[in-house]
Amino acid sequence: MGSQSNFQMKVVPGEFGYVLQDVPHLSDYISDLQTYPNPLRSNPAYSVVKQYFVDMDDSIPEKIVVHKDTPRGVHFRRAGPRQQVYFASDDVLACIVTCGGLCPGLNTVIREIVHSLDYMYGVSKVLGIEGGYRGFYSKNTINLTPKLCNDIHKRGGTIIGSSRGGHDTTKIVDSIQDRGINQVYIIGGDGTLRGANVIYEEIRKRGLKVAVAGIPKTIDNDIPVIDRSFGFDTAVEEAQRAINAAHVEAHSAENGVGMVKLMGRYSGFIAMHATLASRDVDCCLIPESPFYLEGKGGLFEYIEKKLKENGHMVIVVAEGAGQELLAAKNEEDASGNKLLQDVGMWIAQSIKEHFAQETKMAITLKYIDPTYMIRAIPSNASDNVYCTLLAQSAVHGAMAGYTGFTSGLVNGRHTYIPFNRIIEKQNKVVITDRMWARLLSSTNQPSFLGAKCPSVLNAGNAGQLGTNDKVTGLLGCLT
Amino acid sequence: MGSQSNFQMKVVPGEFGYVLQDVPHLSDYISDLQTYPNPLRSNPAYSVVKQYFVDMDDSIPEKIVVHKDTPRGVHFRRAGPRQQVYFASDDVLACIVTCGGLCPGLNTVIREIVHSLDYMYGVSKVLGIEGGYRGFYSKNTINLTPKLCNDIHKRGGTIIGSSRGGHDTTKIVDSIQDRGINQVYIIGGDGTLRGANVIYEEIRKRGLKVAVAGIPKTIDNDIPVIDRSFGFDTAVEEAQRAINAAHVEAHSAENGVGMVKLMGRYSGFIAMHATLASRDVDCCLIPESPFYLEGKGGLFEYIEKKLKENGHMVIVVAEGAGQELLAAKNEEDASGNKLLQDVGMWIAQSIKEHFAQETKMAITLKYIDPTYMIRAIPSNASDNVYCTLLAQSAVHGAMAGYTGFTSGLVNGRHTYIPFNRIIEKQNKVVITDRMWARLLSSTNQPSFLGAKCPSVLNAGNAGQLGTNDKVTGLLGCLT
Amino acid sequence: MGSQSNFQMKVVPGEFGYVLQDVPHLSDYISDLQTYPNPLRSNPAYSVVKQYFVDMDDSIPEKIVVHKDTPRGVHFRRAGPRQQVYFASDDVLACIVTCGGLCPGLNTVIREIVHSLDYMYGVSKVLGIEGGYRGFYSKNTINLTPKLCNDIHKRGGTIIGSSRGGHDTTKIVDSIQDRGINQVYIIGGDGTLRGANVIYEEIRKRGLKVAVAGIPKTIDNDIPVIDRSFGFDTAVEEAQRAINAAHVEAHSAENGVGMVKLMGRYSGFIAMHATLASRDVDCCLIPESPFYLEGKGGLFEYIEKKLKENGHMVIVVAEGAGQELLAAKNEEDASGNKLLQDVGMWIAQSIKEHFAQETKMAITLKYIDPTYMIRAIPSNASDNVYCTLLAQSAVHGAMAGYTGFTSGLVNGRHTYIPFNRIIEKQNKVVITDRMWARLLSSTNQPSFLGAKCPSVLNAGNAGQLGTNDKVTGLLGCLT
Amino acid sequence: MGSQSNFQMKVVPGEFGYVLQDVPHLSDYISDLQTYPNPLRSNPAYSVVKQYFVDMDDSIPEKIVVHKDTPRGVHFRRAGPRQQVYFASDDVLACIVTCGGLCPGLNTVIREIVHSLDYMYGVSKVLGIEGGYRGFYSKNTINLTPKLCNDIHKRGGTIIGSSRGGHDTTKIVDSIQDRGINQVYIIGGDGTLRGANVIYEEIRKRGLKVAVAGIPKTIDNDIPVIDRSFGFDTAVEEAQRAINAAHVEAHSAENGVGMVKLMGRYSGFIAMHATLASRDVDCCLIPESPFYLEGKGGLFEYIEKKLKENGHMVIVVAEGAGQELLAAKNEEDASGNKLLQDVGMWIAQSIKEHFAQETKMAITLKYIDPTYMIRAIPSNASDNVYCTLLAQSAVHGAMAGYTGFTSGLVNGRHTYIPFNRIIEKQNKVVITDRMWARLLSSTNQPSFLGAKCPSVLNAGNAGQLGTNDKVTGLLGCLT
Repeated sequence: MGSQSNFQMKVVPGEFGYVLQDVPHLSDYISDLQTYPNPLRSNPAYSVVKQYFVDMDDSIPEKIVVHKDTPRGVHFRRAGPRQQVYFASDDVLACIVTCGGLCPGLNTVIREIVHSLDYMYGVSKVLGIEGGYRGFYSKNTINLTPKLCNDIHKRGGTIIGSSRGGHDTTKIVDSIQDRGINQVYIIGGDGTLRGANVIYEEIRKRGLKVAVAGIPKTIDNDIPVIDRSFGFDTAVEEAQRAINAAHVEAHSAENGVGMVKLMGRYSGFIAMHATLASRDVDCCLIPESPFYLEGKGGLFEYIEKKLKENGHMVIVVAEGAGQELLAAKNEEDASGNKLLQDVGMWIAQSIKEHFAQETKMAITLKYIDPTYMIRAIPSNASDNVYCTLLAQSAVHGAMAGYTGFTSGLVNGRHTYIPFNRIIEKQNKVVITDRMWARLLSSTNQPSFLGAKCPSVLNAGNAGQLGTNDKVTGLLGCLT
Repeated sequence: MGSQSNFQMKVVPGEFGYVLQDVPHLSDYISDLQTYPNPLRSNPAYSVVKQYFVDMDDSIPEKIVVHKDTPRGVHFRRAGPRQQVYFASDDVLACIVTCGGLCPGLNTVIREIVHSLDYMYGVSKVLGIEGGYRGFYSKNTINLTPKLCNDIHKRGGTIIGSSRGGHDTTKIVDSIQDRGINQVYIIGGDGTLRGANVIYEEIRKRGLKVAVAGIPKTIDNDIPVIDRSFGFDTAVEEAQRAINAAHVEAHSAENGVGMVKLMGRYSGFIAMHATLASRDVDCCLIPESPFYLEGKGGLFEYIEKKLKENGHMVIVVAEGAGQELLAAKNEEDASGNKLLQDVGMWIAQSIKEHFAQETKMAITLKYIDPTYMIRAIPSNASDNVYCTLLAQSAVHGAMAGYTGFTSGLVNGRHTYIPFNRIIEKQNKVVITDRMWARLLSSTNQPSFLGAKCPSVLNAGNAGQLGTNDKVTGLLGCLT
Repeated sequence: MGSQSNFQMKVVPGEFGYVLQDVPHLSDYISDLQTYPNPLRSNPAYSVVKQYFVDMDDSIPEKIVVHKDTPRGVHFRRAGPRQQVYFASDDVLACIVTCGGLCPGLNTVIREIVHSLDYMYGVSKVLGIEGGYRGFYSKNTINLTPKLCNDIHKRGGTIIGSSRGGHDTTKIVDSIQDRGINQVYIIGGDGTLRGANVIYEEIRKRGLKVAVAGIPKTIDNDIPVIDRSFGFDTAVEEAQRAINAAHVEAHSAENGVGMVKLMGRYSGFIAMHATLASRDVDCCLIPESPFYLEGKGGLFEYIEKKLKENGHMVIVVAEGAGQELLAAKNEEDASGNKLLQDVGMWIAQSIKEHFAQETKMAITLKYIDPTYMIRAIPSNASDNVYCTLLAQSAVHGAMAGYTGFTSGLVNGRHTYIPFNRIIEKQNKVVITDRMWARLLSSTNQPSFLGAKCPSVLNAGNAGQLGTNDKVTGLLGCLT
Repeated sequence: MGSQSNFQMKVVPGEFGYVLQDVPHLSDYISDLQTYPNPLRSNPAYSVVKQYFVDMDDSIPEKIVVHKDTPRGVHFRRAGPRQQVYFASDDVLACIVTCGGLCPGLNTVIREIVHSLDYMYGVSKVLGIEGGYRGFYSKNTINLTPKLCNDIHKRGGTIIGSSRGGHDTTKIVDSIQDRGINQVYIIGGDGTLRGANVIYEEIRKRGLKVAVAGIPKTIDNDIPVIDRSFGFDTAVEEAQRAINAAHVEAHSAENGVGMVKLMGRYSGFIAMHATLASRDVDCCLIPESPFYLEGKGGLFEYIEKKLKENGHMVIVVAEGAGQELLAAKNEEDASGNKLLQDVGMWIAQSIKEHFAQETKMAITLKYIDPTYMIRAIPSNASDNVYCTLLAQSAVHGAMAGYTGFTSGLVNGRHTYIPFNRIIEKQNKVVITDRMWARLLSSTNQPSFLGAKCPSVLNAGNAGQLGTNDKVTGLLGCLT
C-alpha cells in the first residue's frame, strides 16, 4: 500500500497570493451526475436559518499569523451543508469503520454519523464494519440504527470494534462494490488514512460513485494541518489523575520519584500538555527532545539535584521518548529482554540501578502507566461537541459529492482537507518553538542540549519554521 | 462610569484591505521611555528557542472565512514576548484584581501572572487587591508570592476574593498612584472591563507610566471578538452532571420532567453547548430565542407531546431565558412574588400549574439549579492550559509597554485586543446561524416562531451577519 | 391503611435472656407445604462451600454493647440460603416494585433480585411493576430478564419507575392473585413498608402461598433497627461536592456564607455525616436539634461571630430542620408564601434580611440545593455490594418460605426482620448521644439549648436510651 | 524483633461464658498514677450529652452469629472517652508515625489525632515522626499543629512520609524517652503493629509512663478481628475505574482480554469486592484460591471458552495470586527474568504466549496496573468518617491510660483490641465460605478444584471455621 498519490491536488488560485487546496469531487471523474436539493432545506430546524448553507466560495486560510504585506497563501474549503447534494437519500448505503487504538470519542463520532445521515438526510442504511479494515472481508456487518447508537457516546471504546493493519486495497474495494456501498466513513490515524487514500484512488480508477470521507483519529495529536485531534482534550484531562498519584507517592516517601508514562509514540503533545496543565511535574521527556541519562547535564544528575533540593520529584515520559537510547542499549545487550520495549519501565529501571549502585542514594520510585485507563474513557463534553461537528462535516461533505477528504478543524473552523495533506508528515512538538520553551520554563528541567548532543539545534528544523507553523494542539490556541 | 472611549483606536492599514486594530502603548503618551532587553533572552529555557520572541509585525485576522477575492480586513496584534521591555524588573510593582462572579480558572490566572512575572521577568512584587474593585480603597493587600500561589490552581474560586460593582475611577487611580503600582491586571467581565477602560483613560490623562491589562472573564462566554472565555469548557463539562440527574429523575417517574437551569443571563452558550454535548435534552431555552408557553407551538404543547410519546423529557433553561414573559407576568401580578425573579423556578411552577389545572395530566417535575456547584469547581486541564497562556500573554504585553488591552484568543491565536472592541457589545448565540440550527435539529424542539412571534425573524440581525460572524465559543471551532 | 399489625410477633426464648424475634413463614398459616432441595446444592460455585447454607438456629443480637452480666436480649434470624426451599423454581412468578423517592442503588437491587432468582434458583419469571404501588392496577408490566438488567446498576434511578402513595390493599392483593404472583419484592421507605405489611396481612388472611419480602429504602437513613440504608453512603459522598462548592463560594466573597440543603425530612443523618466527612462546615442544622434564629445563642449571633472571626462560613441544613420555626412564621404570615415550604430557602432569606436590616453588615449568601443531583447518581462500589447482598438475602428468604419480613443489616450481619420492628418508629439522630457531640465539637456551633429551649433536654428521650441504642448509620460503625 | 508477647493477656470472665480480652493499662505496671477529670466534661459540645462517657463495663462481643444456647464468648472493651484521664493536658507530648505503603485516609487519621488532642483534650504538643520508624533516629520532627493539618484530609498520601522497615526497638524507645514523648500513635500494617508491640513491651520493661496506641492500616484488609481497615472502601471504589477501562478495551477488540492487577499480596479482599461491585468481571484470581493455567479446568481453557461465547472477557488478579505457579516457573527458568516478579504481567505474558503458540487464536490482551493510582487518592466520605472515629478512639484510649492496644471496629462498634490479637494471624478470604461462593456464582469462573488440586479442600481450614468467622470486610456486613 503506497502512500503516494496518483492524482494531482486540485488547486484554485485567487487574489494577493490566495491558493485553495481543494478536495476531489465525484464529478471530477464521473460526468453527468444528477443533483438533488438538500433535504435540510425543508427541515423545520433549519428553515429559519438564513446562513445555514455554506457559500460555495467559503475557504479558510492555513496560516493566519500574518504581516501587513504577507501574501494570503494556502486555504482549505469550508465544511458544511451545500444547497445541492449528489445522492438521493434512499440510494445511500453508507458504512463506517474504525481502525487502530482506542481514543475517547470514537463512539460519539459513530453516533453522530448515523444520526446525521438519518435525521438530516433521511439516510437509514448505515453498516458498521467490524474490527477495523479486516471487517470488510467478513460476511457480517452491524446495522447501525439511530436507536442502537443513542447512548453509545456515554461509553468508551468503539461499538464496532477496531484493529490494526489488515488493509488489502483490492479486497476492500471489491467488498465495497459487492455490497453496493456508496459512502465510506473511515476513522483512524495516519496509517489508516493512508489506507483510505489508496481506497479512494482505487475507487476512482474503477470509476465508482462512492464517496470516501476520513475523520482523523489520533490520541497523540500527531496529525498535521488540523488544530487538534478529537479525544486529545479528554486524554490530557484524564492524565492529570496519574500525575496527581505520582505526585502524592513521591511526596510521601524520602527521595520519592513518581514516574508517569503517557501516550505519544512519535510526538509528545499529551505529555507536554499534561505537564503544563498539572504544574506538579519536574521533568517531561518526549520523543522530539533527545536526552541522555548519565554525566553532566543528564537526567540522573538532574534527578539527584531535585531530590536534594525538594526530597521528591515527578517525571512524565512519553512512550516514544528516548527510543534511540533504548536501541543503543539493546544493541549492547544481546539478550533482548522484552521488558526493554517499554521505555518508561526501562528508564525507571535505569534510574533505580543508577541510584542503588552509583550514587548510593536510597530512592523510592513508583512507576505508573495509565495508558489504557486514559484511552478507554468516554469523551468529555468538549470532545463530544467536537466529535459531533467532525461527523456532521463529514456527512455534509460526502452527501455533497466530495471524496478523498477528511473533515478537520483548521484555525477553529471546520474544513475539508485533501488526504495528501493529512498523510504527508506527522505533527510533532517543535522544540525550538515557544510552547516547549514554556514547558522548560515551568519545569526548570535541563534542555539536554549539552556536549553530548551538539547537533540538535542544527538537526532541528528551526530554519524551516515560518512564524505561522502550528506548534500545539490542545485548544488550537497555544501559539 | 462611561463606556465611551475618549481616545481613538490606533489603526494601521496594509495591503489588500489589511487593517490592524492596534492596542495603546505607554509610549503613545509618554516620550523618551527607556527600554531594556527582555530578561528571557538570558533564560536557559528560552535560549535555544529561535522563534521565541514575537515578530513585531505579527498579526491575526479577525475574520477567516474568506473568498478568493475577499479583502483582508481587521487584524489584531499577536501576543507574546518582545525583544525589548519597558520596565526594569526591580521597578515593577504589579497588582491583580478579580471582579464579578466566580468562574473556574480564576486562581490559575492569578497563579500564572505571579509565576510569569517572577520566573520569566524577575518581578517579585505583586499585590493582590482583595474583594474586587473596592479592594483598592482598603488598606490591606495580599502579597502574592510564587510559593503562596503554588497550589491554588487546584482550588475553585479566587484567593483574592471578588465582588460586583464598587468602581470609583478617581479613587482607584489615586490608590494606584499612591501605592506606586505600575502594572494593573484586571480579571473580569464586560462591566469590569468597561471599568478597566476608564481606569486606563484616567491613567493616561494623568500621564502615568502604568500599564493596564485585562483578562476577559465570563463563564457565560458573552464577550465578543474572542473565541471563548476561560472556564467555559469546565462549566459545560460540569453541567453534564446536572443534566444527567435530570434525565434520571425524569426517566424514573411517570410523565417525568427534569428541568435544569444553567448560567447565561444574556447569552445561552452554556445551555446550548451543554445540550449539544449531552444529547439527553429535549428542549433548550435561551435568552436569544424568544418562546411562549401557551397555545399552538408553545412550550406546554411541546411538553405534552413529548410526554405522550416518551413518558419523560428534559428541559435546559438559561437563567436569562424568557425574561420578557416574566416581566409581562409580573406586571399583571402586582403582588411581586420574589420567587419570580428566578426564571427557571417560575417556568417550572407554570408548567406544574398548567398540567395540574388545564391538562389534568399528572406530571412529576424536578428542578435542578447547579449554578454555584458549576462556578466553584477548579478548572479542568484544558482551561488550566488556556488560563496559563492568557496570563502569560498579559504579562508579556504589560512588560512590553502595551496598555489598555486585553489578552484574548482569536481564531486559536493569542492576541492583544483594544478595550473598545471587547466592551462594544455582548457576544450572543445567533439563532439564525448554524449552531442553533444544529441544536434545534438535535432536540427537535419547536422554533417558537409561530403566530405569536412574527417579528422575530425581522427583528433578528440576520441581515447583518457576514459569513464570518462567530457563532460559538466552546472550542473556537464550531462554525 | 393501618400500620397496626393484626398478627402477633413470633418470639422464641433461649438461655440467659435470649429472645428471637422471628419472622413469619408460609407454613405458619398453610399446612402441608411441600419442600424442595435448594438448587444451590448442585450449583458448582457453591458445591465446595461447606458453610454455604445458614444454620437454622443462627441469629444475631440487636444490642451488642454489653456488660459481663447483661442478659442477651433480642435477636434476629440470620439471612441466607436454607437447605430446603418452599417453591419449585418453575412455579415461581415473582414481582418487584419500587416506591417513593429515588435513592442510589435501586437499580442494583432490582438487578440482583432478578439475577439471583435466575442464576441461583432457576427462576426466570420476574415482573417489574411500573411506577410504584399504582402499577399493580395497570395492565402492563415489564419482563425483567437477566439480560435486560445486566447493566442497569451503572445507571441512577429505577428502571421500573417509582411514585408515592397509590396504595389500595385490596386492589393490590387482587392483582397479585389474578396474575398468579407468588413472590412480592417491595423496595421502599417506612410508608411503603407499612403498606407491604398490610399486603402481607391481607395475603395471609386469604391464605395465599405468596411470600412478601421488603427491602428498606431510605436515603435519609431513618429506618430503625438496621445499621444503615443502602444509598446512604453514596449520598454522603456526593454531598461533599455541594459542600465544597459552598466552601469555595464563601471563601471568595467578603462575609461569604455558603448554605447547602441536604436531604433529611425527619432525621439529619445525611447532614450530620456529610458535615463530619467534610470538615469545612461551621454549622449543621437538623430536625432533631431545635434551634432559633434571633437573640443570644441564636443562629444570627453565631453567623455574625463566625464572619467577624473568619470572613466566611458554611452552613448545612437538613430539609426538615427548623420546621417548627417555619410553622410559627407561617401562622403569622397568613399570605402563605409558597417559598416558605423550603426551609433552606426560608432560612437563607431570613439571614439575608437580618443582615441587611438589623446588622447593616453586607454579606454574600449562596444557597445550594443538590438534592436531585445526589438522589439520581448510581450507587458507589460499597453500596453496590451492599445492595447485592440485601437483594440476595431477600431472595433466599422468600424461596425459603419466609414472608412479612425485610432483609436488613444488623451489627454488620444480614438478617430477616419482621415488618413490625421496621415500621414501629423512625430512626433519628439522638442529640444527647456521642455522635452529635462529635459534630458539635467539630463545628463549634452553639447547642441552641439556651433560654428559649429549656425543655429540650427533658423532652428528649435521653432517659430511655440504653447504652446500646444505635445512633448512627454510615458504617454501622459510629457508636 | 519477635512477635511473641512477653506479657499475658488480661482476661476478665463474666456470666454465661462471657470473656473480656482486655487491653493493658499504664496502672498495670505503674502504681499510684494520678488521675484527672476528663476535660470533655466542661466542653460545651459535650455538656448536654448524657451518655457521652463510655461506661467502664461496656464491651463488644467478637462473635455475634449465635444460637439460643451459645455461650457468650470473647468480648473487647468499648472505645470512647472515660470520666477520668491519666494525663494532664499540659504534660502530654504525643508523636505520630506512619509506616508501610500508602493507603487512602492516612492524612485524615493524622489530622484527627492532632485535632482531637487539641480541641478535646487541650494537648498542643504533637510531633510528626518523619518517614516511618526510622524517623525516630532522625533529629528533625514536624510540629503537627491543628492549623497545619486543617486541609490535609483532602490530599492523598501522608504528610509525615512513610517507609518500610527500619525498626530498632532499643533506639526507638531511647528516642521516645530522650524526647520526653508520652503518647505514641503508630499507624501501620501487621508488621508495623508487631513492631509497636515490642515497643510497648520495652516501654513497659523500662516502667515508662508512655501510652502506645496503634491504628491498623492495610489497604488489603488483611488484619484480623476488625471489620475492615480504613481506606479499603476507597480502594474498592477507585478500582472500578480500572475494571471499566479493561471492560471497554476488551469489548472494542476481537477476542479482547482486559486484565487488571489489584492490591492484595496475601489476601484477595480488594479483588473480590471490586469484582462483586463491578459485575463486569469474568474471572477473579486471589492468593487464597489456588489455580492453574493449563489443561482441563484451567485458566486457558476458561478464557478460550469465554472468548468463543462472548468475544471478550475481563480478568482481575490480586498481586499475590498464583505465587506458587510463579515460583515453580522460576525454578524451571534459571534465567531469573525480573519480569516474573509481577504475577499479573507474568500471567498476561503466559496467556499471550499460549494463544499465540498453542491455540493459534488471535487475542488482544490489555494489562492494567492501577495500584499507585488507587493508593494515592484521598479517602472518600465514608473512610473520612471512619478514620475520624478511629483516631478519636485512639486518643480517648491513650488519654485514659490504656496502652498496647489498637483501636478497631468490631461488629460495627469501636473497640480497643490488645496487640496480640491483631498480630496473631492474617485475615484472609475463606474460599470455603459464602462470600467467595457469591463471587464464583457472579463470575461463573471455574473453581480450579480439578484433578490438579485435590488437596485444596482438605488443606483449607473449613473444618475449623465456626459459623461466626468473619469472612469479609467492606461493610462489616457481608456475612
